[in-house]
Amino acid sequence: MRYHQLSDGSDSRLAVSGEQGIYDLTAAKPRLSSLRDLFRAASLADQSPDAIASRQLDDATELSPQRLEEQRRVPVDADEVWAAGVTYEISEQARRQESTMPEIYLDVYDADRPEIFFKSTPSRTVGPGEQVGIRADSEWDVPEPELGVVLYEGETVGYTVGNDMSSRSLEGRNPLYLPQAKVYDRCCSLGPSVVTDIEDPHSLSLSMSIHRDGETVYSDETNTGEMIRSCEELVSCYRDHNAVPEVSVLLTGTSLVPEDGFTLQEGDHVEIAIEDIGELHNEVTTV
Amino acid sequence: MRYHQLSDGSDSRLAVSGEQGIYDLTAAKPRLSSLRDLFRAASLADQSPDAIASRQLDDATELSPQRLEEQRRVPVDADEVWAAGVTYEISEQARRQESTMPEIYLDVYDADRPEIFFKSTPSRTVGPGEQVGIRADSEWDVPEPELGVVLYEGETVGYTVGNDMSSRSLEGRNPLYLPQAKVYDRCCSLGPSVVTDIEDPHSLSLSMSIHRDGETVYSDETNTGEMIRSCEELVSCYRDHNAVPEVSVLLTGTSLVPEDGFTLQEGDHVEIAIEDIGELHNEVTTV
Amino acid sequence: MRYHQLSDGSDSRLAVSGEQGIYDLTAAKPRLSSLRDLFRAASLADQSPDAIASRQLDDATELSPQRLEEQRRVPVDADEVWAAGVTYEISEQARRQESTMPEIYLDVYDADRPEIFFKSTPSRTVGPGEQVGIRADSEWDVPEPELGVVLYEGETVGYTVGNDMSSRSLEGRNPLYLPQAKVYDRCCSLGPSVVTDIEDPHSLSLSMSIHRDGETVYSDETNTGEMIRSCEELVSCYRDHNAVPEVSVLLTGTSLVPEDGFTLQEGDHVEIAIEDIGELHNEVTTV
Amino acid sequence: MRYHQLSDGSDSRLAVSGEQGIYDLTAAKPRLSSLRDLFRAASLADQSPDAIASRQLDDATELSPQRLEEQRRVPVDADEVWAAGVTYEISEQARRQESTMPEIYLDVYDADRPEIFFKSTPSRTVGPGEQVGIRADSEWDVPEPELGVVLYEGETVGYTVGNDMSSRSLEGRNPLYLPQAKVYDRCCSLGPSVVTDIEDPHSLSLSMSIHRDGETVYSDETNTGEMIRSCEELVSCYRDHNAVPEVSVLLTGTSLVPEDGFTLQEGDHVEIAIEDIGELHNEVTTV
Repeated sequence: MRYHQLSDGSDSRLAVSGEQGIYDLTAAKPRLSSLRDLFRAASLADQSPDAIASRQLDDATELSPQRLEEQRRVPVDADEVWAAGVTYEISEQARRQESTMPEIYLDVYDADRPEIFFKSTPSRTVGPGEQVGIRADSEWDVPEPELGVVLYEGETVGYTVGNDMSSRSLEGRNPLYLPQAKVYDRCCSLGPSVVTDIEDPHSLSLSMSIHRDGETVYSDETNTGEMIRSCEELVSCYRDHNAVPEVSVLLTGTSLVPEDGFTLQEGDHVEIAIEDIGELHNEVTTV
Repeated sequence: MRYHQLSDGSDSRLAVSGEQGIYDLTAAKPRLSSLRDLFRAASLADQSPDAIASRQLDDATELSPQRLEEQRRVPVDADEVWAAGVTYEISEQARRQESTMPEIYLDVYDADRPEIFFKSTPSRTVGPGEQVGIRADSEWDVPEPELGVVLYEGETVGYTVGNDMSSRSLEGRNPLYLPQAKVYDRCCSLGPSVVTDIEDPHSLSLSMSIHRDGETVYSDETNTGEMIRSCEELVSCYRDHNAVPEVSVLLTGTSLVPEDGFTLQEGDHVEIAIEDIGELHNEVTTV
Repeated sequence: MRYHQLSDGSDSRLAVSGEQGIYDLTAAKPRLSSLRDLFRAASLADQSPDAIASRQLDDATELSPQRLEEQRRVPVDADEVWAAGVTYEISEQARRQESTMPEIYLDVYDADRPEIFFKSTPSRTVGPGEQVGIRADSEWDVPEPELGVVLYEGETVGYTVGNDMSSRSLEGRNPLYLPQAKVYDRCCSLGPSVVTDIEDPHSLSLSMSIHRDGETVYSDETNTGEMIRSCEELVSCYRDHNAVPEVSVLLTGTSLVPEDGFTLQEGDHVEIAIEDIGELHNEVTTV
Repeated sequence: MRYHQLSDGSDSRLAVSGEQGIYDLTAAKPRLSSLRDLFRAASLADQSPDAIASRQLDDATELSPQRLEEQRRVPVDADEVWAAGVTYEISEQARRQESTMPEIYLDVYDADRPEIFFKSTPSRTVGPGEQVGIRADSEWDVPEPELGVVLYEGETVGYTVGNDMSSRSLEGRNPLYLPQAKVYDRCCSLGPSVVTDIEDPHSLSLSMSIHRDGETVYSDETNTGEMIRSCEELVSCYRDHNAVPEVSVLLTGTSLVPEDGFTLQEGDHVEIAIEDIGELHNEVTTV
């Protein structure tokens, strides 16, 4: 099923959509107002989130697509977002060019241990239609479109689209600046929805386009089948020896990287689409 | 003034100590039960935390040193802990030896921009007397004793002692593994107290000793005067372009690093002391 | 000073108004977003709320009267609302006529101990412009316009206007039904503002009018000088032997009671004004 | 099933007991740490609380009866406690004697509408082993042992034992003082457990004894079959036109009332037992 979170003024609402339409689950169960509520109930009741949601459909009210678009917010309130790097072949090549020390990327590419890092907090994560940030002290900035694994207490419960905003200026200058290149104000976007019934997360087409002043300044696509690590492997590395929070998202890396001459500018529109999940739109602002 | 947080069963209490004794401020003002409460009131009332605390002393009850020792908990509930690296001369040398790519540390050492990274969350931070963790998948683990700057809404309000636990195995293998070497279960300790009236944070003696089976297996000392960056410079770098939380701690790096043959073992006791602040004790466990 | 709470979509804001204009204190101090925040800081810092608010005026942004009207919400989020009865001479007469057991009101009128009762919870209290309720199982319903004393930890910190909605059907049938006549869905309204610098709460004119289909169906006025109990006496009775919450409001009773033939109807508009505090407007709905 | 809430220092735990032993459900599911958690999950998942609890038994750890006794706390954190009066024949007689206006009790006794009133908040409700209060300004105080209906969103989900502490001095002086006689510091006790599978709440033996200085100064028993109202009738009256909170308890009145010459004293021990639910013990203190 495909889940959405809406903001109705001061209140959060949980919706689910399918071929029959869009349904407001919070109308059926007022305490089912976020995806966390659903995942927690499912975990405590030893049921699947979809089984619980399905039973509410008769009592749920239908929502118009317009209202969904207008009131959408981040589809899951992740306590923490982590991300992986060097997980696609192209990613390794791209990063080799940008860094003054390319061998560290090659090493990770060949190593058993993936690169996993703390990416974002709720205060730094935006949802569909909100602004993502580029650091004012960075000259070279790119979005990184990624498949996001949604986890409840460390177990995979769904998938979403993520944007791992990155300062290539900082990252390229020195690997020790990677946290500054990755963790800053408005550094992460998630959305538009969370889908629980993806059959194979490793065969989804993934595309990104960037628009500026009415023109498309970047457009490319790939497939999650190009990943050299499985989602399970990345999730396992994230969980090991870690204090995993109740709800988290793990971004799985990217291979779609604009070429070296390209940098994001304030006002750019970034669209990231993943097959069967949806399209995430964000405008760029300077932070 | 020197502030302490205590856990009295289910309740948190805030205490302050000086030459006259130890005073339970929560006894005077029940809603003054954490350092966050004090800092928030001070910020909203445009007063210093010490001015507010001083006025409560007449109504505060005196606490015995024994009770303080038994009920101590982490002295400040930081929403986020960040840390800096390569801030002391010795640190640069030590890291040069450990890594296969020493030039990245030299680069940071010489660069205008410091190394700053996301270190810990409340769920991963322990207090005095609690266990710090070494990763079960790491063979070389060290404590890093550091002066911690306590920040309220990004402004310096005090100082504490911090332990930036690190897996040198992971960090040394590849700089891209730094987040895994730094952010994991029980990776950070803070305590024993927060001191607001440090005259000069750049002239404090700092020592660490490690005890195993009744023997001292490591002991050394340095002085924060050996820092090559100022606290203000590090704080400024942390705040810039970032979404700073209400309460945070910034660890300022270390120069006390056990030699290469040394690794922490489960059951070791780590003692870190900073002049005018106090002594932080933690036992080591495997996570 | 005169305080207002606004709802700006999902966020609460605290404003203050005077001759110079209306100021958004939350713009000056983001964590000063409710009257509770102000009262708590004032209590912890041993200052007056007005002293704290005054210092923010330079940094506060000015609000238009239109925006204040549109975004007003309940001016204080009281954990509990309590109320007093039989505190005005007219009230005693009115209640004598309505009840089958008038002597109990006369007894309270003459007794040392006032009548004090638990009136409302946050879930049952509405603000300016929101709907107050009349019980669907009651045929005779009236508003009771009252001066409200605002208390922080049991200490008087301001005054507001309150509407103690009452089912005279239930109250008149049997005094044991008083709680059902008084505590129900949407049974209480507070607003529009909280004023901290009322010189004498016992010399304020108080008026109420009720409008239906464009006509005024009730209009009368009195003065709090007609009270036979002082606010301090009522507050003292409320606090004694009680577990007083952080923020509460004590309504002080009324003498403005529509005559026996009058009952509220769905759609009626109730206006209650108290000198120096403001005018509280609510529409009536059936619950 | 029979549910218990424990306090393990700072944490709450949920336990269930049966013939096989006492099981710590929180050990099986860390987020199942209160009865509210269980009821909410059951409501969202459209399952019975017992079905969810039963599935955890294999993963739950066994608790000793000693630990249960030592760590017991109030068995359900009710947002509100309401109570009913004049629901047993003896109650009417007793109250007739005590009041100067006995006809109001006779009227309720004969009326369709029961007497229902707001009884307590979480801040005024204690659990097993904690102290219940008698008002320092009251000379005649009694416990009222009552069957408590536990409600989740207004639906009956279990039963507990309740003590509706009452000042007969105030209640008897004037019915308008009833709220002061009923709602004050430590005025309510609930416990020791909540039982979900009571077959018939109207055929349970209910007994109370009061001990002073090693002697039994009161002992009597009745049966809930003596109630003149059904639990459903009382619950229906409580819910109608009301803003019902997520978790509440409705006390159903009593017929066990110590004779007129008896009043509670500080230090008395009150034991209330209801068949199939358990025995609630509290000591008396002056508030």
